[in-house]
Amino acid sequence: MAEHHNKNTTLVKDIIIGMSDGLTVPFALTAGLSGVLSTNHLIIVSGLAEITAGCISMGLGGFLAGQSEVEHYDSELKREYSEIESVPMQELKEVEDIFMKMGVEKKLSEEVALQVSKDKNNWVDLMMKLELMMEKPAKNRAAISAGTIAAAYLVGGFIPLFPYIVTSNSKTGLYLSCIVTIFSLILFGFFKSKMTGRPLLTGTIKVAVTGIIAAAAAFLLAKAVS
Amino acid sequence: MAEHHNKNTTLVKDIIIGMSDGLTVPFALTAGLSGVLSTNHLIIVSGLAEITAGCISMGLGGFLAGQSEVEHYDSELKREYSEIESVPMQELKEVEDIFMKMGVEKKLSEEVALQVSKDKNNWVDLMMKLELMMEKPAKNRAAISAGTIAAAYLVGGFIPLFPYIVTSNSKTGLYLSCIVTIFSLILFGFFKSKMTGRPLLTGTIKVAVTGIIAAAAAFLLAKAVS
Repeated sequence: MAEHHNKNTTLVKDIIIGMSDGLTVPFALTAGLSGVLSTNHLIIVSGLAEITAGCISMGLGGFLAGQSEVEHYDSELKREYSEIESVPMQELKEVEDIFMKMGVEKKLSEEVALQVSKDKNNWVDLMMKLELMMEKPAKNRAAISAGTIAAAYLVGGFIPLFPYIVTSNSKTGLYLSCIVTIFSLILFGFFKSKMTGRPLLTGTIKVAVTGIIAAAAAFLLAKAVS
Repeated sequence: MAEHHNKNTTLVKDIIIGMSDGLTVPFALTAGLSGVLSTNHLIIVSGLAEITAGCISMGLGGFLAGQSEVEHYDSELKREYSEIESVPMQELKEVEDIFMKMGVEKKLSEEVALQVSKDKNNWVDLMMKLELMMEKPAKNRAAISAGTIAAAYLVGGFIPLFPYIVTSNSKTGLYLSCIVTIFSLILFGFFKSKMTGRPLLTGTIKVAVTGIIAAAAAFLLAKAVS
């Protein structure tokens, strides 16, 4: 039943989150600095500082967000369990309303609600899904998510940075960084479009253009204020 | 019915997304550079380049993600409409299965499925929500999201940066930046915890500590490679 739908796995999503910013922000920052600095040393230091900051901010941020999601789910779950204990008739009515909104007749909705309510777990599960649209978050999701996002940011960030490490001046560094990063953005855009079931050409172009706009804007702004 | 649940509005979510990274990454980057540079000019240029890059990457990224979400929803919606035309019995069976999993008896599930299937819109709506767990994305969401995230990043990013603009050397800049940013992280952590219904003290501490760890790591790394 599920095969014909494109479901993004969490892993792919996390890689995409980390790599999108990881490729773009360090690329734009180093490009911006290359416009005002002639040697590469400070560009590399800035790039490394930014990658460190981005990894921690996005990774730890992802970890806390994942943790919050679990906590939020658990607290809503607890609330639903307590509500079917304290105000069962009201909760039964809510189930009926949900079915009636789907086009089920009142009498039949009542019957269905009664049957669902026989099992408390089914009842709460239905309220969570249909009333709150919440799905149970996977276990350890927060930690794995954090690690994946941080690693993807790190890998993405080193691609625009390493040309400055292997070249001797910022102009050559910038040229090489543009070549490898734009090439990587295209590859990443293609991979992203493929994994998320989006049109390949426009999807790829969008990703590459976002990176190029960010880098161009950072370059022009850095030039302007220097 | 909805009042007793903490539902984050999209606006609040977007502000939180933009400001989390906006406060943290420019703070860490400028702190890192202050460890290796004595004057503020290059720190300011780097900070501005980073804020520009971050705004565009996160804003445009958010816009494209929102657009993709709408496209994805529409394509799945189209697929469901076509499936109830081409394989109606199979789709009817899927509805029955969904109800049976909720603890509704087979006979009653069949009856409910038949009633829901009388209205194609209700039928597809139910499949979208229960089979795919997808909710219709709001209109213009992508553009508003993009603007909100970018603005929040910009505001967040200027808080750690402006101390370097108003002071004359990087040491004073760093001290002032630490004071205003940590204070802002605490305020933001409090606001975020409040809006997302999380415990105020631990929520606030988590946000502040994330920012401090990122800045400390960037500072130490920048020192180490210089």
